[in-house]
Amino acid sequence: MPPVDAERPEATLAAFVADLTYDAVPEAARTTIERAFVDTVGVTLAGSVADAGARAVRFATSLGSGETTVLGTGETASLADAVLANGTAGHALDYDDLSWAMDGHPSVPLVAPALAVGERVDASGRDLVTAFAAGFEAECYVGEPVSPTHYEQGWHPTSTFGTFGATATAASLLDLDEETTARALSIAASMPSGLKRNFGTMTKPLHAGLAGRSGVTAALLARDGFTADEAAISGDGGFWERYAEGAERVADPPGDPWRLVETGISVKAYPCCYFTHTSVALASQLSEDHGLAPETIEHIETTTSRGAGDALVHPDPETGLEAKFSMEYALAAAVVFDRVGLTAFEPAAIEDPEVQHVRERASFAVDDTLAYKSNHARVVVETTDGERYDGTLEEPPGTPANPLSESELEAKFLECATEVLDRPTAEATFADLRALRSCPSVRELLAPL
Amino acid sequence: MPPVDAERPEATLAAFVADLTYDAVPEAARTTIERAFVDTVGVTLAGSVADAGARAVRFATSLGSGETTVLGTGETASLADAVLANGTAGHALDYDDLSWAMDGHPSVPLVAPALAVGERVDASGRDLVTAFAAGFEAECYVGEPVSPTHYEQGWHPTSTFGTFGATATAASLLDLDEETTARALSIAASMPSGLKRNFGTMTKPLHAGLAGRSGVTAALLARDGFTADEAAISGDGGFWERYAEGAERVADPPGDPWRLVETGISVKAYPCCYFTHTSVALASQLSEDHGLAPETIEHIETTTSRGAGDALVHPDPETGLEAKFSMEYALAAAVVFDRVGLTAFEPAAIEDPEVQHVRERASFAVDDTLAYKSNHARVVVETTDGERYDGTLEEPPGTPANPLSESELEAKFLECATEVLDRPTAEATFADLRALRSCPSVRELLAPL
Repeated sequence: MPPVDAERPEATLAAFVADLTYDAVPEAARTTIERAFVDTVGVTLAGSVADAGARAVRFATSLGSGETTVLGTGETASLADAVLANGTAGHALDYDDLSWAMDGHPSVPLVAPALAVGERVDASGRDLVTAFAAGFEAECYVGEPVSPTHYEQGWHPTSTFGTFGATATAASLLDLDEETTARALSIAASMPSGLKRNFGTMTKPLHAGLAGRSGVTAALLARDGFTADEAAISGDGGFWERYAEGAERVADPPGDPWRLVETGISVKAYPCCYFTHTSVALASQLSEDHGLAPETIEHIETTTSRGAGDALVHPDPETGLEAKFSMEYALAAAVVFDRVGLTAFEPAAIEDPEVQHVRERASFAVDDTLAYKSNHARVVVETTDGERYDGTLEEPPGTPANPLSESELEAKFLECATEVLDRPTAEATFADLRALRSCPSVRELLAPL
Repeated sequence: MPPVDAERPEATLAAFVADLTYDAVPEAARTTIERAFVDTVGVTLAGSVADAGARAVRFATSLGSGETTVLGTGETASLADAVLANGTAGHALDYDDLSWAMDGHPSVPLVAPALAVGERVDASGRDLVTAFAAGFEAECYVGEPVSPTHYEQGWHPTSTFGTFGATATAASLLDLDEETTARALSIAASMPSGLKRNFGTMTKPLHAGLAGRSGVTAALLARDGFTADEAAISGDGGFWERYAEGAERVADPPGDPWRLVETGISVKAYPCCYFTHTSVALASQLSEDHGLAPETIEHIETTTSRGAGDALVHPDPETGLEAKFSMEYALAAAVVFDRVGLTAFEPAAIEDPEVQHVRERASFAVDDTLAYKSNHARVVVETTDGERYDGTLEEPPGTPANPLSESELEAKFLECATEVLDRPTAEATFADLRALRSCPSVRELLAPL
């Protein structure tokens, strides 16, 4: 790996993306990518019939036609329109993965362009793995010098850094050379957008779709000779300066170390805010271990970080979207349901008297001694017959340190995919995606979707 | 007109856009719009075969198919893809109009969405005039509270403010109600982009295409019930805060006063930087008045503003793009050619020995006592036989105070349109567009294009 060219960091990234081969991707990273890929396709399928996703799908399929699969619909659209739809659907349920290596959701801006461009050039599964690796490292490399300032100022990194990731992913699949990849990344520097101000609305998932659409646009235009300034990320008035206060440090080179290995990706076990996950896992465990019936709960309380306190602002949610950002609701769902899955955020669940019974007895405290983003949680349950149970947990399920088991990954995929596919097709698709590196043809992979 | 709601300026704008009718647009504004419309269609036709424009056209027509006309090509594409192509083509030659009311090029982000959405709903010419009026006033209203800071920080207002203009234009043609228009504008707040850092490259005209694509996306998604934060422009972490340092003032309400009437639009007489225009007009006039032959020029000098000094940085240009930003070249072209038009920036003109002879004898000085953006110019010519001629001019041709004559407007249109249309079709199109308010059907208008 060449050292970072502090004079022109764009060139370092372009060389990495253009030169990256499947063989150069570490096995640990490949494994992470395959898991992220299947998980992202799953949540995209489910998201294609959810609020924002369904609307993005209608947008794409109503504007024209094309050869690019719109996941979950049996329809196709123009490549750019399909990428917008698939990217938006992937984030529509907030059930997609995340990584602290780029302060956001890394996979949604990558998978939609990877599948669309991969379908166009009929790439192999290995090409997809390589392109994802290029895109993920690009998101991190562009993001690190301005993080966390960029996020704190109000930008949504899934969309902004994701724009560069999507561009790198598309460039990799189009097999662009270093100079052309550099132009693609500089064209992309004129495209990032996405305000945290729009969190809590359908425009949040749209940000992921916008990133993907921008990435394929930048890569395809660069391939046709489109020009851009060579320092559009790092130069005066470039991305780092305009979307933060300039680079605060020189990032380590992309792939050295591999962010996919060092930091990794956290797969979500539950379709709600990540800050609820440790508490949900603990409450589920206590409920199962002690056979707690909802009506016997006198009080259930969790204590966790300030980050959770800032994000979880709906003690008495009225909608599924609010429920995703309610610790009290999450605790109740954990006690009442076998699994806190998609159905736990549907109207029937929110109105369920048992859930409401427990939610009214749930409370949520912040421990200021914990790190802001810590997911450490403590849960204490008191029952009507005077018993008291408690526990603590450091890591929520799905982190690299506490990954979902193969059966949990499959259960989540099938839960999601069967929103739009019959179960045999969903099971076959899971098997195909889990063997991504052996897949000879993206087109064959997408045919059933 | 309701007073500006300082608590929620978005609502003021949404009400204006949703309620605007053709009858409410002042006659002076309608006239300005009709001239801007024909001029923008002309430069778009010429731009469809220019560097960035041709590439954007290939991008659009290669991704899928649709029912939206890609101007100048006889082809169609998906609505969003076509808007990207038409908007980029419109700005590809930097021959399109500008307005100090929004610190940029107002018409390119509006005309592409207006034609595309107008074609879809088969709007009338009056509907297009109304939608343009809504879009133009929206660009200004969103831009004014953060101008000129926004531009000075490095953003390209044609793209950023243009995103809101495009959204308003599309919303008007889709006949969205006030609440839906407000959501469209707030979705759009998560979309603006475009760095001045990319000026001087093909990505600059792309910015106009991106604005148009964003606008139609926001309006169509809003129509389908997509949600966004209601203060995404004005609230904490909203557009004004993230793309500047927050609003510095409360803008006057849109349409009160009409920016289209108060500030108006400047139509370009020459396909080069506006800061050259007064000098070109003067040099042409002196050359004509005194029958100056190129070989008799001993020295030609112009003196103008610091704004010109900052922009015109290529005394010895090698490409057409550099020549557009060269005062020395512009003076030479003015003396040598009957008209400084598109051909004056082609390789044959740049290599012309007579042009080079004059360019080598041309010089350019800055008068610090002039306002930064002043277009005031003085030109002094000395001939080989010892004669000396000079003149001064305040206003370049094409400004509201010194508008192009009808024949100049037609000559420019025909020069541009005949790049892709035969002359009878170009002449018929000019006539149709000049009678825009009488046009019953956008589809009929676009059929020959």
